Amino acid sequence: MSKSSSADLGLEDILSGNLLAASRLIRRIEDGDPSTRSSLKALYGHGGQARVIALTGAPGVGKSTLVAQLVGEFRAVGKRVAVLAVDPSSPFTGGAILGDRIRLGNYFTDPDVFIRSMATRGHLGGLARASGEALQVLDAMGWDLILLETVGVGQSEVEVVHLADTVVLAVAPGEGDDVQTAKAGIMEIAHIFVVNKARRDGAEQSARLIEEMLHDRPGIAEGGWRPPVLQTDALDGMGIGELVENLAGREAYLEAHPEAIIRLHRARVLRVLEESLKSIAAERHIGGREGEPEFEKMLSEIVARREDPYTVAERLLGSGKG
Amino acid sequence: MSKSSSADLGLEDILSGNLLAASRLIRRIEDGDPSTRSSLKALYGHGGQARVIALTGAPGVGKSTLVAQLVGEFRAVGKRVAVLAVDPSSPFTGGAILGDRIRLGNYFTDPDVFIRSMATRGHLGGLARASGEALQVLDAMGWDLILLETVGVGQSEVEVVHLADTVVLAVAPGEGDDVQTAKAGIMEIAHIFVVNKARRDGAEQSARLIEEMLHDRPGIAEGGWRPPVLQTDALDGMGIGELVENLAGREAYLEAHPEAIIRLHRARVLRVLEESLKSIAAERHIGGREGEPEFEKMLSEIVARREDPYTVAERLLGSGKG
Repeated sequence: MSKSSSADLGLEDILSGNLLAASRLIRRIEDGDPSTRSSLKALYGHGGQARVIALTGAPGVGKSTLVAQLVGEFRAVGKRVAVLAVDPSSPFTGGAILGDRIRLGNYFTDPDVFIRSMATRGHLGGLARASGEALQVLDAMGWDLILLETVGVGQSEVEVVHLADTVVLAVAPGEGDDVQTAKAGIMEIAHIFVVNKARRDGAEQSARLIEEMLHDRPGIAEGGWRPPVLQTDALDGMGIGELVENLAGREAYLEAHPEAIIRLHRARVLRVLEESLKSIAAERHIGGREGEPEFEKMLSEIVARREDPYTVAERLLGSGKG
Repeated sequence: MSKSSSADLGLEDILSGNLLAASRLIRRIEDGDPSTRSSLKALYGHGGQARVIALTGAPGVGKSTLVAQLVGEFRAVGKRVAVLAVDPSSPFTGGAILGDRIRLGNYFTDPDVFIRSMATRGHLGGLARASGEALQVLDAMGWDLILLETVGVGQSEVEVVHLADTVVLAVAPGEGDDVQTAKAGIMEIAHIFVVNKARRDGAEQSARLIEEMLHDRPGIAEGGWRPPVLQTDALDGMGIGELVENLAGREAYLEAHPEAIIRLHRARVLRVLEESLKSIAAERHIGGREGEPEFEKMLSEIVARREDPYTVAERLLGSGKG
């Protein structure tokens, strides 16, 4: 057997940027394979360099076209870009079904662009865990930028957004529904607002509405980041330059405010730690994860009040020092 | 010292409905006192009987007035009602500051009504944990109904809503903002929609807008619960009877669909279990919780990539069986 056979692809290959090796590890992460943890441990020390930008918004607002435009802009200045699509409605998400990476239009042959979609295995919380771990694989590979494409509604998606340094919320104009999406949850954590398809009627009005909503936002008064509200039309590139400038502005803000970066990283790390505690405890002590029979049986016992969750948690954690 | 002194109040007192004993335990839960876990364990087997109704909506839509009306209706048919206010903007929430229970207007002297607000200690996630645990204390006391009053925006609040069997989302008419709140996150999980202050202009239109949003909602087509959209004016009682009828309808639906109840209880139990794993692991192995110096030091080490979160999680969980 040749040492160079693809079966031998390992961590060194991922660290040196081998896309096939990274894709395979992400596939095992999606499958919930606990043996991926040793790889994640080894990769962790190599990460922390990539800027992570989440692009979120309801289906149909044009997120994928915005992503394609941004990839073009970043490539034009020589940046290496990975895209992680965590959005069941994304055209990229076919890749999860086909089981391999999808190349984005023009970037078919560009080794400095990598697009991967996350498969949703259907169990609650699994997507957030898997997306967080996949992001760490990409981070360790040394991409300059990682774009997370995600629908910003629903608990898993909100958790995914928390993995980013910068959150861009895209809405479509005039349609009350899209601006409404801006209101709850995601609204609080978006750093840049984009009214896409801005040649349509109502774009000005939508932008004004968002500006008004932002007036009450805490943090701005104390010298925090002031979220810009932009208008774009990703199909023909209108406003994309301005979006890139504002992303650069956000980058400059973060560099000038190391405490903001630390706060973002702290929140991200806390999520990874919590997910790890949960899955390691489940694997070790009951040989299962959410959705698997043993785990579900244990939950049933608690639902039936034959067990209490505190005692079960203590048992899962072993007798410990306490 | 007398055995009957209030210092001796214990679990038996809570189980027999002593409000002071319950309030004291909830206070210790808010403070994050780990010794409350033994009480929660002992109480757990006595719970599971109360119906839990969450009433959620933006500040100013009239949630507290709706709560007061509902308490009146339930008392009129002899039901014993507890209210847990998890809403910093609630007038009841003064109670958290005063450090004791607040009685609601007419029910000052009614021993079958208990109103308690949760104090927010300011650390992320703490409110969701504490609210879940306080709910279990109330549940074990044998209240027929527990009303959770909460602002439905923000991650902690969304988590709190998941503790309920039935989620009522209140909006104000005409004001785009309030209907917008309905869209993201909470919209997916609300079982009854209420346009309150319905004598104002725009109530019909707001109700229609919600009906339209509900058209696309998954689950309804497969015989799931179909959320009604009601109009009320809590100040003078308009529509309150209809709201009570729809709550009874929801109750009948749940009784006819035990699988729905099991699904709700499963989700609730999973949250309690996850919170317990997290806090027990933190207490035992690093002697701290989120926000405390040792815990924060550990997070800093991970942020700085001197440690990886997987190894830290394994260490927190002890060597285990794995």
